[in-house]
Amino acid sequence: MTEHGSVQPARKTYLTGSRADLRVPMREVPLSNGDSVVLYDTSGPYTDPAHRADVRRGLPPLREAWIAERGDTAEYAGRAVRPEDDGRRSDDPLRDGAAFRPRRPRRAAGGPVTQRAYARRGEITPEMEFVALREGVAPELVRDELAAGRAVLPANVNHPEIEPMIIGRAFKVKVNANIGNSAVASSIEDEVEKMTWATRWGADTIMDLSTGRDIHSTREWILRNSPVPVGTVPLYQAVEKVGGDPAELTYEVFRDTVIEQAEQGVDYMTVHAGVLLRYVPLTARRKTGIVSRGGSIMAAWCLAHHEENFLYTRFRELCEIFAAYDITWSLGDGLRPGSIADANDEAQFAELRTQGELTRIAAGFGNQVMNEGPGHVPMHKIKENVDRQQEWCDGAPFYTLGPLTTDIAPGHDHITSAIGAAMIGWHGTAMLCYVTPKEHLGLPDREDVKAGMIAYRIAAHAADLAKGHPGAQAWDDALSDARFEFRWEDQFNLALDPDTARSFHDETLPAAPAKTAHFCSMCGPHFCAMKITQDVRRYAGERGLAEHEALKAGMRDKAAEFAASGNRVYLPIADRSPEDR
Amino acid sequence: MTEHGSVQPARKTYLTGSRADLRVPMREVPLSNGDSVVLYDTSGPYTDPAHRADVRRGLPPLREAWIAERGDTAEYAGRAVRPEDDGRRSDDPLRDGAAFRPRRPRRAAGGPVTQRAYARRGEITPEMEFVALREGVAPELVRDELAAGRAVLPANVNHPEIEPMIIGRAFKVKVNANIGNSAVASSIEDEVEKMTWATRWGADTIMDLSTGRDIHSTREWILRNSPVPVGTVPLYQAVEKVGGDPAELTYEVFRDTVIEQAEQGVDYMTVHAGVLLRYVPLTARRKTGIVSRGGSIMAAWCLAHHEENFLYTRFRELCEIFAAYDITWSLGDGLRPGSIADANDEAQFAELRTQGELTRIAAGFGNQVMNEGPGHVPMHKIKENVDRQQEWCDGAPFYTLGPLTTDIAPGHDHITSAIGAAMIGWHGTAMLCYVTPKEHLGLPDREDVKAGMIAYRIAAHAADLAKGHPGAQAWDDALSDARFEFRWEDQFNLALDPDTARSFHDETLPAAPAKTAHFCSMCGPHFCAMKITQDVRRYAGERGLAEHEALKAGMRDKAAEFAASGNRVYLPIADRSPEDR
Repeated sequence: MTEHGSVQPARKTYLTGSRADLRVPMREVPLSNGDSVVLYDTSGPYTDPAHRADVRRGLPPLREAWIAERGDTAEYAGRAVRPEDDGRRSDDPLRDGAAFRPRRPRRAAGGPVTQRAYARRGEITPEMEFVALREGVAPELVRDELAAGRAVLPANVNHPEIEPMIIGRAFKVKVNANIGNSAVASSIEDEVEKMTWATRWGADTIMDLSTGRDIHSTREWILRNSPVPVGTVPLYQAVEKVGGDPAELTYEVFRDTVIEQAEQGVDYMTVHAGVLLRYVPLTARRKTGIVSRGGSIMAAWCLAHHEENFLYTRFRELCEIFAAYDITWSLGDGLRPGSIADANDEAQFAELRTQGELTRIAAGFGNQVMNEGPGHVPMHKIKENVDRQQEWCDGAPFYTLGPLTTDIAPGHDHITSAIGAAMIGWHGTAMLCYVTPKEHLGLPDREDVKAGMIAYRIAAHAADLAKGHPGAQAWDDALSDARFEFRWEDQFNLALDPDTARSFHDETLPAAPAKTAHFCSMCGPHFCAMKITQDVRRYAGERGLAEHEALKAGMRDKAAEFAASGNRVYLPIADRSPEDR
Repeated sequence: MTEHGSVQPARKTYLTGSRADLRVPMREVPLSNGDSVVLYDTSGPYTDPAHRADVRRGLPPLREAWIAERGDTAEYAGRAVRPEDDGRRSDDPLRDGAAFRPRRPRRAAGGPVTQRAYARRGEITPEMEFVALREGVAPELVRDELAAGRAVLPANVNHPEIEPMIIGRAFKVKVNANIGNSAVASSIEDEVEKMTWATRWGADTIMDLSTGRDIHSTREWILRNSPVPVGTVPLYQAVEKVGGDPAELTYEVFRDTVIEQAEQGVDYMTVHAGVLLRYVPLTARRKTGIVSRGGSIMAAWCLAHHEENFLYTRFRELCEIFAAYDITWSLGDGLRPGSIADANDEAQFAELRTQGELTRIAAGFGNQVMNEGPGHVPMHKIKENVDRQQEWCDGAPFYTLGPLTTDIAPGHDHITSAIGAAMIGWHGTAMLCYVTPKEHLGLPDREDVKAGMIAYRIAAHAADLAKGHPGAQAWDDALSDARFEFRWEDQFNLALDPDTARSFHDETLPAAPAKTAHFCSMCGPHFCAMKITQDVRRYAGERGLAEHEALKAGMRDKAAEFAASGNRVYLPIADRSPEDR
């Protein structure tokens, strides 16, 4: 392909592993100079031209054979789906209840079936090999980080459709996108479309935070079609099952909901087990009290009963369930700060200490565990959050919401929080929960989801660069090379958001020749710093010397050459075309 | 005003100083609870209902009397405007040349007339008192920081229209917006509108980076109508005057351009005096060479002549001119990195050392000086930039472009760079040059200017918070209070961008009653964490005890109260309105 030749857009490619069914999807960007750049790809089979999407059939069960081969799980009848699972009265028909072919769930036949348990035994599972190829690291690193609890590989045995991914500070920083049905009913296609839109823009996991009706059915559609791990907050559904009253919650209802979701295949669950009765008063003097839904529900339950949080007192029973399906804990931060004023306060850190205690208990059950974190934190208090979490929670992966670095910009909190997210990612946070421009104001639409994802992919990549993650800078270098060499189509194709980059350039220089032009659209052809640098460099190159030395030696020659060419680096105004004057 | 009463939008207010003509504009946001919040205001007289804008007359010369009273300047005939000042042939009429009444320029009658020289003599000028009131600090702090060269107060004696502002690490972090005529001719009104749009969204200074035709006239319109200091890069106009050929540049043409602009009232000038001949080869092995226009022009000049940069060799002569008008140096970083790969390299830091040398020379002339900085820098290399600049340049204010923390996101570089800007501001940068989404791709339009300004006001405020700047958090606290108390109109009015905050909320909950609703539009009335916290807090307050103790003591009562009220924190789904299900 010549430098000015037509450039192909990005295409799907696969890295193959030690077995035929281990194919790791990547995004390959062919460049006009014949090179190509291979990037991490979260978009799933949807971007493979060979894949025929059918949301009512779901994705192919990539991991099915791997799970079955291990021989440590067994199918069973499973819990019968009930009308109240979808927030319906007993006489309402279940919505689209038969959309998917009946599937018998699996669970452990004996001991824990978690990736952590396998890693501790020294095994490298196909899932571990998959993420090693995906990250460009040794499988042994994946295994060792999982065994130590410094990384998680969320992969419920009932969610065989996922393309495995890993969350841990030794790996690329990940991004989660929250979706969830708005109260107004939407179609299967709408729900799946929300999820694929988020993964197209780089969501490594998604959380389904639906409330209201049709929670069970919506989740089923999402799970069967999601190429990324799915997280939930089971408490939301449990509260719906008891008529919306937190005080009516019981451990039994909660447990039933966990099993319902476990059988569907939820990969990780946020559980607010660290909101202890004695911590609730610590929030009374805060500027913004409790801002976590789950935290406020458990605080209300504790106050109503004057009893300790049942998620804490029954935690070990839940650990056994989590071990039987390989559900990853996402220990909720129910007391996270909701304002700059409340950052790093006693309530927040009291809960974090309890997260550490729970992390150690779960480790004893072979569970995979991550810890959720804030929230709203000014820049100078960000590092302390990671440092304490890493110390108190034995290096478990940290999973933070932002943090927002100021409260003053509702409508632009993807930016206030991308600042904090990039910093906290650099300091060791393993996954960032995105924030959209609608945060605090309303429900995100399609454009908000994209804006949130773009801001957070920027934050995650900036963090990877700052951590010195192997290979991260290759992407920046490829794009900067394309920029310096005026390979415009390559720049667009390499951009995090090719559509926007191309359309912005088109606004200023719409004609096709501009896409091969050797100047920037800002400065025009006669005022371009990069062009001058290229002239200097080309001069050195022609003489066949090392550039540095050539330039030192050749300056006098260069001066003569400049003079001979009429010193015309810039054209006189009168000689320019009207647009360039 | 009652909590539910109608809320007035923000209004202009003035702080008065020690003399009647010293009135400092502020933005007062009245709150529905009777309080108000007073914020820094860059929007100029345009937002004062008493002001009658007439772009052909310009703004009232606020500082005229202060300058005259000092008696250290004298009017003189001034340089005659020539056709080539506007890039025109001698037979072209000057465009709108007579738009403003003839004004005789001023310059020093004797020694330096810089704010720094006054500060060194222990004087507190009206300009210093103005910025002290504006920043909420003691006038002595302003004077001492100016005297030490740790801050600048850009205020050309020929720009009496400005509302004085200060740039230094002891003060609020400032933001500059670049504007500049695109090559296509535009009207007076268009040019002024671009500037006022930027200052409306918080630009503390603007730089006019026009190239091509009508540079002189455009600048005149901007200066006469600008309430903020105006910066330029005189080299751009000088190159135009010699027909666009850097090799034809001479010190004399450059000097003539500086005087032309000094007489018009330009407050600070970017001068690439640190791009030395011997540094040019250091850029040869870079990924993106030289990316500064001014840097590449001077590099081309040096190579063409094989002589040292005349801006460096004649620097002292320029210092004398700068002292005579009180022009502030903005020592350019012509060798700033243009990619992550080139950050903090030898070329960059070699020039920074020379900036330090020049800073000390200028100090000897009583000049005010700031240093320009990068560029593209990954997060872990940002702090080193500030630390070296502060050390090598004797604490002079640092003025950085971003920096962008990754190269991969053209089309979204307001975000990649807001991350770096916030961090570098925290570490001590005094002014941030904004970056718009069009960076690298095209010329910013109105929406891009706003997007860039919003991202940078966020970065600057996040930096103020992290620095612990006195009073910075009051804004966040006021907004968080409004959020917690569901005072929606107060939230909108306090927001950095009230228009966007209001419209996003309207999309989800358009009806007027929602603006006084006691719940968030995300969770709906039945699922609101803040609502529960308020219930808890109100309960404590009713008993008249300190909240913390009350909560501890009262939990059993609270449990009983919850039970008595039917445990209805959330309504059962069946009892909810359809939108809330």
